[in-house]
Amino acid sequence: MALAERILTGDVRAAARLMRDIDDGFKSAVEELKILYPRTGNAFIIGITGPPGAGKSTLVDQLTAAYRRREMRVGIVAIDPTSPFTGGAILGDRIRMNRHADDDGVFIRSLATRGHLGGLSRSTGDVVNVMDAMGMDVIIIETVGVGQDEIDIVRMAHTTVVVMVPGLGDDIQAIKAGILEIGDVFVVNKADRADADRAVRELTVMLEMNPDKDQRWRPHVVKTEASRNRGIEELVQEIEAHRNYLHHSGAIRHFLEEKNARLFLELLKERLFAEVYGHIHVNGRFRKIVEGLVSREQDPYSAVEEILAEKFAAR
Amino acid sequence: MALAERILTGDVRAAARLMRDIDDGFKSAVEELKILYPRTGNAFIIGITGPPGAGKSTLVDQLTAAYRRREMRVGIVAIDPTSPFTGGAILGDRIRMNRHADDDGVFIRSLATRGHLGGLSRSTGDVVNVMDAMGMDVIIIETVGVGQDEIDIVRMAHTTVVVMVPGLGDDIQAIKAGILEIGDVFVVNKADRADADRAVRELTVMLEMNPDKDQRWRPHVVKTEASRNRGIEELVQEIEAHRNYLHHSGAIRHFLEEKNARLFLELLKERLFAEVYGHIHVNGRFRKIVEGLVSREQDPYSAVEEILAEKFAAR
Repeated sequence: MALAERILTGDVRAAARLMRDIDDGFKSAVEELKILYPRTGNAFIIGITGPPGAGKSTLVDQLTAAYRRREMRVGIVAIDPTSPFTGGAILGDRIRMNRHADDDGVFIRSLATRGHLGGLSRSTGDVVNVMDAMGMDVIIIETVGVGQDEIDIVRMAHTTVVVMVPGLGDDIQAIKAGILEIGDVFVVNKADRADADRAVRELTVMLEMNPDKDQRWRPHVVKTEASRNRGIEELVQEIEAHRNYLHHSGAIRHFLEEKNARLFLELLKERLFAEVYGHIHVNGRFRKIVEGLVSREQDPYSAVEEILAEKFAAR
Repeated sequence: MALAERILTGDVRAAARLMRDIDDGFKSAVEELKILYPRTGNAFIIGITGPPGAGKSTLVDQLTAAYRRREMRVGIVAIDPTSPFTGGAILGDRIRMNRHADDDGVFIRSLATRGHLGGLSRSTGDVVNVMDAMGMDVIIIETVGVGQDEIDIVRMAHTTVVVMVPGLGDDIQAIKAGILEIGDVFVVNKADRADADRAVRELTVMLEMNPDKDQRWRPHVVKTEASRNRGIEELVQEIEAHRNYLHHSGAIRHFLEEKNARLFLELLKERLFAEVYGHIHVNGRFRKIVEGLVSREQDPYSAVEEILAEKFAAR
């Protein structure tokens, strides 16, 4: 039986296997994904992002528990910044998640930001599709939200939760990277800290000044203490409120169009490049081009034009 | 006279104009860049990166002054995270730079992380090439260093300076995103703060544990107080030490090959995509694909394969 069929019957090992195949860039994985695709679109996808150290992993852990209490199956895609230095810290995060390790209703997959084939948001999309087809009711994508890559990833979520901590609130620079625009729900975590209320106030003011956001949904700020499981129910309620808004307002349609267009274009870019990559490596050509670029005997613009002319010529 | 020729004679306005043309994706800009390319490769490129709020802009300002005292011409490429929210803060940074505004030996260009055509590191590379051809001796690229995009950008620099502040040092999560690996020189800025020495010690320990880095260059940590112009000469000396190392060790060769290969592939990807982009928009086809994806009647993998088959068929 094909992996895809086994996944549709709930085979968790088949799902894990397909995710590895996706990571390894196996062509067969694409065929499996084609079979799964019509069976996706049922899961509710939540993105969790915020600066490093905001306590996102603990929050994801508590959210998972909260959805499990509602008897919903939860998939988690954790995007791990890749750093040989901080392997310990990353491992620490993941170990914490282990309280769900024996729970059949929770499926966790970590993706590294580097070292896998293709674009990160495309592979995240593939993994989300597998979890969706597996019948996960809720899929949580956790990223360290600062770069454009990470922002692209959370834009895959129906509802994006931006997690902040007190003390970052007074440094307006900390939110430069545009994470305010992408948040549907805001969390001030570690709310036991002295300046938590000030952080909530400042965040609320900034959100009210936002001229661009859809006026029909005004994001609220929720205070949590994830490590003590405080504020989690309020957070779930805010997330569910946003989910209801999406469906009742019809905003879901525009969201899905935009998201599918983006993911499709990313896949197209990746496959286009794969198509040409082999071509430029014949007879050490790529090496020669690079040598020419370093010595400045060749300019990159002309070199690219030459390759395009060859691949697209004679049509 | 073509823009490129005017730029080679030192015409600053022509350079600014070409940079705008690059941003706007004008085809003529590529022709100008082809002319300029053989005249590049002389500038020394310094990347400055670090978390938001570390004081990078002030440090760049002081570094610029230090190189101007050495009678070197300085180009600055500031990568600004795009956020309608924090326009004020970004403007604030740039205003500070204005003390160099009347200095012919300084050329500043801001690039937004969003809203320009093509990949950010490709356009940064183009702008750096223009400055290089203009005869800038030193080019400083400043980015908020957290995402993969920003890391790709600073990898264009001969010497990368990672700027930290006290208080971030004790949060190992803050450096998850891999900026330690890319640093050739480390700065603890705002060194007047109480815990500065601890931050220096912690950073030094972490750097010593780094197993991957080229063993012939051990990065040092420099303390600065950029706002009071303290530690800047020491920083310049460290940067110059790394520059000497690159040339004397021969490491420069590998660096240039790797950098040119990367930039070439990025340009190739971008142009490949541009080639196909028009094709998929004929007769509302793209719209139909997206509709099919949303309704799940069409899967993205097959849709991409169809387009590739059309573009690359009959060869």
